[in-house]
Amino acid sequence: MNKPKINTMEELSTAIGVSRPTLSRYFQDPDSVRSSTSEKIRRGLERVEYIPNFFATRMNRKTTGLIGVIFPHLKDLFFTSLLEAIETAAMEADLTIITQSSHGDPAIETRAVEQLLSMNADGVIVAPLGENSDVDALSRVAGRLPFVFIDSRLRDALPDVDFVGTDNRQSVSLITDYLCRTGSPPVFLGMPRLNSNSFEREAAYIAEMKHLGHDPVIVSTNIKGDGWAFEAYAHEVMDDLFSRGHLTESTILCANDRLAIGAIRAASRHGLFSRGREGRRILRIAGHDDHPSSRFMTPALTTAAQDTEAIGRGAVRILTERLRKSSGASDKPVFQLHEAVLRVRESA
Amino acid sequence: MNKPKINTMEELSTAIGVSRPTLSRYFQDPDSVRSSTSEKIRRGLERVEYIPNFFATRMNRKTTGLIGVIFPHLKDLFFTSLLEAIETAAMEADLTIITQSSHGDPAIETRAVEQLLSMNADGVIVAPLGENSDVDALSRVAGRLPFVFIDSRLRDALPDVDFVGTDNRQSVSLITDYLCRTGSPPVFLGMPRLNSNSFEREAAYIAEMKHLGHDPVIVSTNIKGDGWAFEAYAHEVMDDLFSRGHLTESTILCANDRLAIGAIRAASRHGLFSRGREGRRILRIAGHDDHPSSRFMTPALTTAAQDTEAIGRGAVRILTERLRKSSGASDKPVFQLHEAVLRVRESA
Repeated sequence: MNKPKINTMEELSTAIGVSRPTLSRYFQDPDSVRSSTSEKIRRGLERVEYIPNFFATRMNRKTTGLIGVIFPHLKDLFFTSLLEAIETAAMEADLTIITQSSHGDPAIETRAVEQLLSMNADGVIVAPLGENSDVDALSRVAGRLPFVFIDSRLRDALPDVDFVGTDNRQSVSLITDYLCRTGSPPVFLGMPRLNSNSFEREAAYIAEMKHLGHDPVIVSTNIKGDGWAFEAYAHEVMDDLFSRGHLTESTILCANDRLAIGAIRAASRHGLFSRGREGRRILRIAGHDDHPSSRFMTPALTTAAQDTEAIGRGAVRILTERLRKSSGASDKPVFQLHEAVLRVRESA
Repeated sequence: MNKPKINTMEELSTAIGVSRPTLSRYFQDPDSVRSSTSEKIRRGLERVEYIPNFFATRMNRKTTGLIGVIFPHLKDLFFTSLLEAIETAAMEADLTIITQSSHGDPAIETRAVEQLLSMNADGVIVAPLGENSDVDALSRVAGRLPFVFIDSRLRDALPDVDFVGTDNRQSVSLITDYLCRTGSPPVFLGMPRLNSNSFEREAAYIAEMKHLGHDPVIVSTNIKGDGWAFEAYAHEVMDDLFSRGHLTESTILCANDRLAIGAIRAASRHGLFSRGREGRRILRIAGHDDHPSSRFMTPALTTAAQDTEAIGRGAVRILTERLRKSSGASDKPVFQLHEAVLRVRESA
């Protein structure tokens, strides 16, 4: 604690008796100076308190080791689960993650990607806002930096950007099939039309229902949610339907767990979780994601669990591969889909 | 989209016909060059695609506009609620937030604060791990940068660091008093001994119970949670007690909402949410925080709501004040406490 504080390279040069240019070379690459010199610098650094400037030492390197991550919201445990997986993988690869939330606002999303560019980030991982994203801004950044979409992607733009997420066709088929085998075929409660997942999961539900010989039924509603407040939206939709006596004995497949949590709340308030003959629940609700709260609901939520660990790691791996072969601009885009697994709990 | 891409200051100088030193001065302070020159640069920048380097343009400024935020975990909606409040306040003050999670690991917390120092951050907001934090590392950083503890602080170290959080004495008294007025006096389920909140809330409960003439009762347990997995910890503790017939008709005040969510889950599994005479619940569970999920529980959670908005804004305001009066090292530390409000729902 009593080591002298050194604030600049000049002070450091004086304090340990090594010239400034040599120190610069050392911080950019310790092997670029003679071993006796690097030993002298190492010993000198132990005697003082000096923190080399992150950006100055990286200024002449090709890479900064900085990876930007942008999510629509951080008040969503699905996204923060992905984020923790990304952070863990990044730490192992000696990369630093800078996270920004776009707060559901395209202008903030745009500002965040441009700022990452100005910080000389090595790459960017974006879960886009989707339908509201500023396509021009995202493609400007994608043209300059390794860029990966995670969780969802733009539907009609930037098809050449790498993507890692869940195979919605597989995950939705898995849970639809399970629900059909174990009770009444499910109706589908979609999320507001925000991103590729909302479209893909609905399409996957329709395809699987037809495949199994059932009529797909989409819960249609006039209620407009404010986008990302999924629990409140689903609660309002289902409360309205249950109040009018609709769907009270059906099976409801929700496009994500946060919707299912809102639907369970509405069903509980209407006292709909009674049990029929043989102890079976009559009303059944299932979700998609395996949100960290889902197991603590009453009834505990049956869902298709996304592999957030693999998706987060996958995104970091795609970026590190891109960084390795720096001139790989002509490579084909990576399209990495992970499978979900069924988590059968109490709600269905 | 077809503007020529400019990657360096040299290229920019050639492209718009202004010397490099003048450009540098312009990016550091547009008012430092003649107005005709700054107009020429502005028009030139519109014709090309150039993103000035974030750090290069700030190299000679006193400030980078970069604020670091470190939280124990991001898979916790209480912390991400605080984070969104910080981000919103920072955007209004034209500051950029860099967030890092310490994943509950003191070594990662230390690495994160030191990295923020090396990035020349203007200030740091830390919700410390608490009992496990590396006091030496935190005090090293606090000695160099404006530094604010948020939500909790170290108990026996760094008393001179600014702090903003909830007045646990007020918040716990508020809900304890409410519970005593409306039913049986509460027993207290604390969180694992992680940080100042765990100690302060227990002490506040004991003081308020004594003040009201009741015997404080702390739920004691041999179960060791893995630190931050509060729901699972509380579920295990209460499931064990309920299985042995304990506390099944009591009032349980939990030190945070995530504990209460786990306790509600255990109570639901044991079928304890029946109603007694006059429709009153016999078992009652209350929390502390108003976690975003609490209103969607069944029963919906009664809790003391922390003012995350005010706490997040407060932290940013303290830092911006410190930055304004740069030599204010001798100032007294700020100790800013916000009051909680009661949210009466169904669980108590």
